[in-house]
Amino acid sequence: MELVMRQYPNSWIADSIMCKRGVAGGASGTTHELTEAVQGTYIYTIGPYSTPVLTVKPGDRVVVETKDAFEGAIKSEDDKPSELLKMPFLNPQCGPIMVEGAEPGDTVAVHIESMVPRGPQPRGTCCMIKEFGALTGTYYTATLNEPLPEKVRKVHVDEQHVYWSDRVTLPYRPHIGTLSCSPEIDSINSLTPDNHGGNMDLPDMGPGTVTYLPVRTPGARIFIGDAHASQGDGEVCGVAVEYPTVTTITVDLIKNWAIEWPRLEADDFIMAIGSARPLEDATRIAYRELVYWMEREYGFDRWDAYMMLSQCGKVRLGNFVDPKYTVGAAVSKKYLA
Amino acid sequence: MELVMRQYPNSWIADSIMCKRGVAGGASGTTHELTEAVQGTYIYTIGPYSTPVLTVKPGDRVVVETKDAFEGAIKSEDDKPSELLKMPFLNPQCGPIMVEGAEPGDTVAVHIESMVPRGPQPRGTCCMIKEFGALTGTYYTATLNEPLPEKVRKVHVDEQHVYWSDRVTLPYRPHIGTLSCSPEIDSINSLTPDNHGGNMDLPDMGPGTVTYLPVRTPGARIFIGDAHASQGDGEVCGVAVEYPTVTTITVDLIKNWAIEWPRLEADDFIMAIGSARPLEDATRIAYRELVYWMEREYGFDRWDAYMMLSQCGKVRLGNFVDPKYTVGAAVSKKYLA
Amino acid sequence: MELVMRQYPNSWIADSIMCKRGVAGGASGTTHELTEAVQGTYIYTIGPYSTPVLTVKPGDRVVVETKDAFEGAIKSEDDKPSELLKMPFLNPQCGPIMVEGAEPGDTVAVHIESMVPRGPQPRGTCCMIKEFGALTGTYYTATLNEPLPEKVRKVHVDEQHVYWSDRVTLPYRPHIGTLSCSPEIDSINSLTPDNHGGNMDLPDMGPGTVTYLPVRTPGARIFIGDAHASQGDGEVCGVAVEYPTVTTITVDLIKNWAIEWPRLEADDFIMAIGSARPLEDATRIAYRELVYWMEREYGFDRWDAYMMLSQCGKVRLGNFVDPKYTVGAAVSKKYLA
Amino acid sequence: MELVMRQYPNSWIADSIMCKRGVAGGASGTTHELTEAVQGTYIYTIGPYSTPVLTVKPGDRVVVETKDAFEGAIKSEDDKPSELLKMPFLNPQCGPIMVEGAEPGDTVAVHIESMVPRGPQPRGTCCMIKEFGALTGTYYTATLNEPLPEKVRKVHVDEQHVYWSDRVTLPYRPHIGTLSCSPEIDSINSLTPDNHGGNMDLPDMGPGTVTYLPVRTPGARIFIGDAHASQGDGEVCGVAVEYPTVTTITVDLIKNWAIEWPRLEADDFIMAIGSARPLEDATRIAYRELVYWMEREYGFDRWDAYMMLSQCGKVRLGNFVDPKYTVGAAVSKKYLA
Repeated sequence: MELVMRQYPNSWIADSIMCKRGVAGGASGTTHELTEAVQGTYIYTIGPYSTPVLTVKPGDRVVVETKDAFEGAIKSEDDKPSELLKMPFLNPQCGPIMVEGAEPGDTVAVHIESMVPRGPQPRGTCCMIKEFGALTGTYYTATLNEPLPEKVRKVHVDEQHVYWSDRVTLPYRPHIGTLSCSPEIDSINSLTPDNHGGNMDLPDMGPGTVTYLPVRTPGARIFIGDAHASQGDGEVCGVAVEYPTVTTITVDLIKNWAIEWPRLEADDFIMAIGSARPLEDATRIAYRELVYWMEREYGFDRWDAYMMLSQCGKVRLGNFVDPKYTVGAAVSKKYLA
Repeated sequence: MELVMRQYPNSWIADSIMCKRGVAGGASGTTHELTEAVQGTYIYTIGPYSTPVLTVKPGDRVVVETKDAFEGAIKSEDDKPSELLKMPFLNPQCGPIMVEGAEPGDTVAVHIESMVPRGPQPRGTCCMIKEFGALTGTYYTATLNEPLPEKVRKVHVDEQHVYWSDRVTLPYRPHIGTLSCSPEIDSINSLTPDNHGGNMDLPDMGPGTVTYLPVRTPGARIFIGDAHASQGDGEVCGVAVEYPTVTTITVDLIKNWAIEWPRLEADDFIMAIGSARPLEDATRIAYRELVYWMEREYGFDRWDAYMMLSQCGKVRLGNFVDPKYTVGAAVSKKYLA
Repeated sequence: MELVMRQYPNSWIADSIMCKRGVAGGASGTTHELTEAVQGTYIYTIGPYSTPVLTVKPGDRVVVETKDAFEGAIKSEDDKPSELLKMPFLNPQCGPIMVEGAEPGDTVAVHIESMVPRGPQPRGTCCMIKEFGALTGTYYTATLNEPLPEKVRKVHVDEQHVYWSDRVTLPYRPHIGTLSCSPEIDSINSLTPDNHGGNMDLPDMGPGTVTYLPVRTPGARIFIGDAHASQGDGEVCGVAVEYPTVTTITVDLIKNWAIEWPRLEADDFIMAIGSARPLEDATRIAYRELVYWMEREYGFDRWDAYMMLSQCGKVRLGNFVDPKYTVGAAVSKKYLA
Repeated sequence: MELVMRQYPNSWIADSIMCKRGVAGGASGTTHELTEAVQGTYIYTIGPYSTPVLTVKPGDRVVVETKDAFEGAIKSEDDKPSELLKMPFLNPQCGPIMVEGAEPGDTVAVHIESMVPRGPQPRGTCCMIKEFGALTGTYYTATLNEPLPEKVRKVHVDEQHVYWSDRVTLPYRPHIGTLSCSPEIDSINSLTPDNHGGNMDLPDMGPGTVTYLPVRTPGARIFIGDAHASQGDGEVCGVAVEYPTVTTITVDLIKNWAIEWPRLEADDFIMAIGSARPLEDATRIAYRELVYWMEREYGFDRWDAYMMLSQCGKVRLGNFVDPKYTVGAAVSKKYLA
């Protein structure tokens, strides 16, 4: 199928915006361990009110032990999500990680180097949760229909494959579902994406890519969690193959680069990310940000960029199940040269 | 970039649903010429009220001379679309082509074999039309803002490339923007997609693929037009690289296969297509149809299909600029084996 | 409750836009009878392709025998709508009625004088139809939930009351659910509202009001049907108290008044009507048309009108269940003086 | 016009849910003064992290000095909102007010007794803010159009009238735009409505009504602000007649009444309130909550309630300009007897 998902190399990073404009500029820093023990209590709301667990310098590497989105509560296919999950204590995040020197108006760059599964098998979990997902009435698209049945799927995951069923084996396509810097004064539950990042559930946000997040508080306050071993476009049933990982990131800081929404860079494309409802608004945000980006930093005329993206823009539907939906709009780097 | 668009071979067609279930079953029929002269007046509304221009048997080939979406009215970059285009006389279609033996409850299969550009250079046209496109107030998303400027872009197109600008050359990625069978009693302007097909603007609908359309009137009444030499996901400015072609299709008929929405098949995936507003509803329709398809014809349990697509479903955003937005939801054939 | 629905007097009509600007100018014309026998086959699609049943002059009165939206098929509370109703043969319309002298660019005025129930009791019908209504997954908001149960409610209706249940008696608040002029070349099923009118399901469209519809074909081609004995804002379950009536209308023609969307006038307010999805777009259309109307015909500055409606504009939600949703935006005539 | 807005008497309060089920049960308590001095710094985000300014017992009265939504920064019609307003420091709130004994699972009742304008004339402010409002591209409905012009309107307001212009005088129809209890762990900017209340901008929320808010943290933490001297349905330009007031409220507590979304009661109707995007989802939430309310507390069969609201439900569009849109769905008390 043509819309293949693939993993990106790390070798291109020296040419990334992160390395070209970051404070560290590609130089290696210290490696920090953000284990479960260091993290202690995981975080469910992304804001400026929680206590930092770590402070890093631009260029530092952090090895993070993420928990799955259910914090390990769903252990068996006989479990009932409705009995084990309690809103809003879902989607546990590691952090906040403070970045030295980060101030509002700057941008943090997060390079995901690797994501390694951890924990006993079957370590992957998918499920159907009442009134959650795209093909059901929900909390917001409120209907009087009976909810869909609750279902749990426990899945073996290794660094090559996701063993979905006897019939179907999927490739391992790891990515981070939730990555954020703190909003200025609000605190947003970790289930919701917005202009701070959050629960974007964007399959492109995997090893070999760099995510850029706007800094809105001193120290940036990075939160990370919600690893997926695979996820389809839109995350239609509401849940990916959720699993615990050891995820290694490198953090850098780009001073005085004020972006409004998160952005992503891979070896061969740049992507602007929007999160909103309805879905067309998420797509509008992403494409408008991409037009502005091409105009301001790649020398395109605004209307040329707009019409050209109408011929070669690429859209990734992250999710259309979370409280806001997420879309990435991308353009190939070969057209930016 | 990973979301590459590619062209499909025709060699897999013998294994397609069309060949396996169609009346012709892959046997070659007569070749018909639907030239401009045969077509005479082009059609702007898709319904049961227009006079057929051709009748074909299942298995027949039709060589169609499509006009561009502006019927050639925009000739120069100095032209003003607002002075040359008049609603609803836009997006001219060839047809209706009657299919012998087609009855409501059947499905028509349209295999696009090839799309060859025709006409003098620069034969491709893109433009910005007042209150049309995704990043502007529109007729429906009614605002009081001044419209964006009108712009016209004339583009050289050959069978290898679309010469967008001095800076950017795009690959030739031809596809049919508007493909339909007639609704039962309504007649829908050729700018609008819906469950009859219509103006889907789906970049996958190119050479080497088969589109399946529900038959709702005797004879099916196929309409075709709106060729694009390239188009980005979502067709963000509202217009692709519109151009005239000689398009060759083969038509077959699958008796007693009642589908509700259009479907598309390529060598390596199957795709269900939904058109609606808001965009999440188009996506819901596409994914629900895909779940039903997997359940009814590939032996999947409904909930297994739903959860599995949450891991490996692929979404193509056709357009989010037309009166209804179009989304394709696809799954790789390798997971259907 | 403050959002009361009331019936309007006919006495103000001499001061209406219809009488001040219409060809007839308030003069009485001939009275025509459009009985079931004269109508013959009722119409399910609003377009230029059906055969006229009547031609009237501006100022003429027409006494119309409307059928209920189910064409009388639902006779008992034991009936199953799914067994008796067949898409798209729903919502039968009377017409087309040709208006002498009507040309594209004109506006037709339809003054509803009275609506009298007819037929044996219980003559009112409400029901719950599978995958139709606001609080259920639907054809477009496609879900995998089990449909809601089918329910039928037969209701006594007289000119004072709607006898809903032993517990609840509602006032008789008659109005026309579907009122249209033909689109230019399309034909739109009678279940869908759009800029031609159609299935607006707007409770204000009752006796004592005038509806203005844009003329898009010679003769205008008026269609009317779908009487409701009462309806709440939004028609939440998808169905009002549907019933057959003798409805008396007077038709006039306003030359060279080109409106884009339907409008409504009562003794004390003017209302612009928009139909679209999502619901905010219907509301945007209605409010934008109202701003334009105040600017062009009542001498308001555009921004003053916009800000003033932010203080005193009134919104009626007609339906949010039909293929497009309908909203009226209104302003009191006392502020237009 | 029929959709009149009126002010409600306080005399019916003894029969309200608040008095019948509240801890105070209609008994008068202490009167507290929440002056500007007591408040000190106003609050811009609704959450559990700010320091309480007052603790009250059920039945207590609080006299609150609200500031206008711009905190008085817009003083002249020559002011530019873009130079004076800084996100997210808008819509200043008084509070948090702690309610003794309030626990998650309870409901707080806020009876608005009176709203008296304060401050020098012209004390009312309306304006057009860049990329904010319903008839313009916005932060979320992202377009490339030039923003609408910035406009400021300063308006005389007294307890009888809002002197909009030389031409138009509007009645004084005071109401509270923003009323909240704290979310459990999130903190939501005061511009956004959601299931905690927030910036609902519902014109019904005026003197003589009672608003019910779900308690999600110990002590409830009430926030109040954003007084409007008048507001049309939908608040179309984004801003009402914003003004400073002395607002008097009485607070009561209903133990073990767990509501999911805010509710409102007046002398003659009950209303459920939903906030979401798109607008149909806000309306769905409101109507579903109303169906549940009628079923659980007024003895209606679910399907009877659903079909009956399709005949007599009333919808108020609060706003369709804020980050989430707000709708109230109401039913007359006379049908609940």
